[in-house]
Amino acid sequence: MKVGGLARRTLWPDAVGDSVHVIDQRALPHRWVEAQLATVGAVAQAIAEMWVRGAPLIGATAAYGMALQCRADASDAGLHEARRQLDATRPTAVNLAWATRRMLAQLLPLPEAQRATAAWLEAAAIAEEDVATNAAIGQHGLAMLQALAASRPTGRPLQVLTHCNAGWLATVDWGTALAPIYQAHDAGLAVHVWVDETRPRNQGASLTAWELGQAGIAHTVIADNTGGHLMQHGEVDVVIVGADRVTARGDVCNKIGTYLKALAAYDNGVPFYAAVPRSTVDFTLDDGLADIPIEMRTPREVTHLTGLDAQGRLVEVQLAPGGTPALNPAFDVTPARLVTGLITERGIVTPEALRS
Amino acid sequence: MKVGGLARRTLWPDAVGDSVHVIDQRALPHRWVEAQLATVGAVAQAIAEMWVRGAPLIGATAAYGMALQCRADASDAGLHEARRQLDATRPTAVNLAWATRRMLAQLLPLPEAQRATAAWLEAAAIAEEDVATNAAIGQHGLAMLQALAASRPTGRPLQVLTHCNAGWLATVDWGTALAPIYQAHDAGLAVHVWVDETRPRNQGASLTAWELGQAGIAHTVIADNTGGHLMQHGEVDVVIVGADRVTARGDVCNKIGTYLKALAAYDNGVPFYAAVPRSTVDFTLDDGLADIPIEMRTPREVTHLTGLDAQGRLVEVQLAPGGTPALNPAFDVTPARLVTGLITERGIVTPEALRS
Repeated sequence: MKVGGLARRTLWPDAVGDSVHVIDQRALPHRWVEAQLATVGAVAQAIAEMWVRGAPLIGATAAYGMALQCRADASDAGLHEARRQLDATRPTAVNLAWATRRMLAQLLPLPEAQRATAAWLEAAAIAEEDVATNAAIGQHGLAMLQALAASRPTGRPLQVLTHCNAGWLATVDWGTALAPIYQAHDAGLAVHVWVDETRPRNQGASLTAWELGQAGIAHTVIADNTGGHLMQHGEVDVVIVGADRVTARGDVCNKIGTYLKALAAYDNGVPFYAAVPRSTVDFTLDDGLADIPIEMRTPREVTHLTGLDAQGRLVEVQLAPGGTPALNPAFDVTPARLVTGLITERGIVTPEALRS
Repeated sequence: MKVGGLARRTLWPDAVGDSVHVIDQRALPHRWVEAQLATVGAVAQAIAEMWVRGAPLIGATAAYGMALQCRADASDAGLHEARRQLDATRPTAVNLAWATRRMLAQLLPLPEAQRATAAWLEAAAIAEEDVATNAAIGQHGLAMLQALAASRPTGRPLQVLTHCNAGWLATVDWGTALAPIYQAHDAGLAVHVWVDETRPRNQGASLTAWELGQAGIAHTVIADNTGGHLMQHGEVDVVIVGADRVTARGDVCNKIGTYLKALAAYDNGVPFYAAVPRSTVDFTLDDGLADIPIEMRTPREVTHLTGLDAQGRLVEVQLAPGGTPALNPAFDVTPARLVTGLITERGIVTPEALRS
């Protein structure tokens, strides 16, 4: 997508092939900071500390982490250790383990001397496939949005609500949940996006609002508390979210709070879609509520928050009384019964049709 | 309730009877700031700018506003104008209009010379009744909590989730939703409170967490997104919230986001109660969604936030990209079908039984 008129991706290999560049997304929307990662340890840190985030981008970045490992030590032991290190960074998104497993399957059969080159190509292939996958998700989602718009009174834009950031910043390019919105905008379909703030890390207010602003797409930030009220009053035509893991029966694990929006959508007859590459589906699990591990993050993300002060400095402020305990599960699970459809690169399917 | 070991209320008349003192709650939990209000204009400002907030406290403070008006100009025209000014400050909570109407009904039949003294006594009566009402709500709520605890496995505290602040800071004393919790604590019943942060003004993380900390009651702050996940995993035994207006059929208007928690409670079989003085019930309205006016507050409350920096200064920081549009409706309506019961000063009733 374009930033200040220039086409950008969220990660790009260095020209000489010994490192990968990413955007340190922790500084957005207030600063544009790039980082160069040259070791698997640096990649693991960037994922764990959420310089890069979003299930598809985590997967692609981890693939480059495996490739960087091959530059340092391409032995079986080295690769297994790199995979262990990367997989341990974030437990919920399945794309991470999917990408490292794919790299390992590609590399282990090869002689050590060939692994570095092969790994670089395979990581690049994963990144390119992500872009193509998301473009296809965008096309299928666009058709759905066009059909919805045709069923609505003309004269007002289609109202889409999204939670967290499943935009191009969460992928290599295009995004998942936002891909249909970008394609609708390009196709001349009027859309307006309700952007859930997405506490505690505010990826909606910071990343999604920034992306949509850069693209010139109409949007309004709301507190996470507000979506239900808007749906009760007919102000939301469709909900589209991303996902970090989807089970074989279609339970959708996504950013904490997604379940509440799915309940409200169901209660108000608003269609609820998750946009998911097939690599986000974990066919080994069925019951998302029982079986998907939910990452617990630091309470400080709830009790403290960083923003821009009047002097343009990034400042962390404390919200709750000093010493207040807080709990910070990062994801929740929306049962398949609340999900209208999954927008995949192969088309839109109901949760029940996912296995086929 | 006690603050630093001293019994306090949220408003108290000045000893010489020409002003009323309140806590400027905007500075909590970081600062304790008191304010002295000597005119109806000052009272209107304190309500509009949320130095005082919470439906019952707004009502009692407005009553003192009418009393202060009598000191300045006790004419019929003066009283009608004061009422208009006060009623215009916040449209959603019905206690405000209830209190000013009650004051007017008491004062207009009297000769002008008697109005100032009568008004002071009536405002004091409204405040005292609020304390007694909330104590009674606490007793009825305690009985409900004890019955719930008896039905749960022993060895872990009863888990109560609350949204926003309906504690003693929202009333003259005791609170509404928190009154049963304070009485449970006093009665030796182990409780733990999940405190919804309550964006955008964070009354949960700032006021409720502070109140419970002062009282030594176990609590944990969570993002507003988190309650549904906790309910899915059996971590919430009961939800208790306050209300700003309840319709004759039992629709509950309360802080934005309440509806989402009610949906999650219903979906998980968790009982959902609103603690409401009878003065919060508006018997002139039936359909809360259609008929209760929802206050729209400034977008800046969504895009900016004030907290304590590392140097102990109160600093406002910007969260979203500069110029990002935001929408900030302050309340939503939970349909009666999702409400297990209303805890009133006369006992706990189902929404259907409210009229009787």
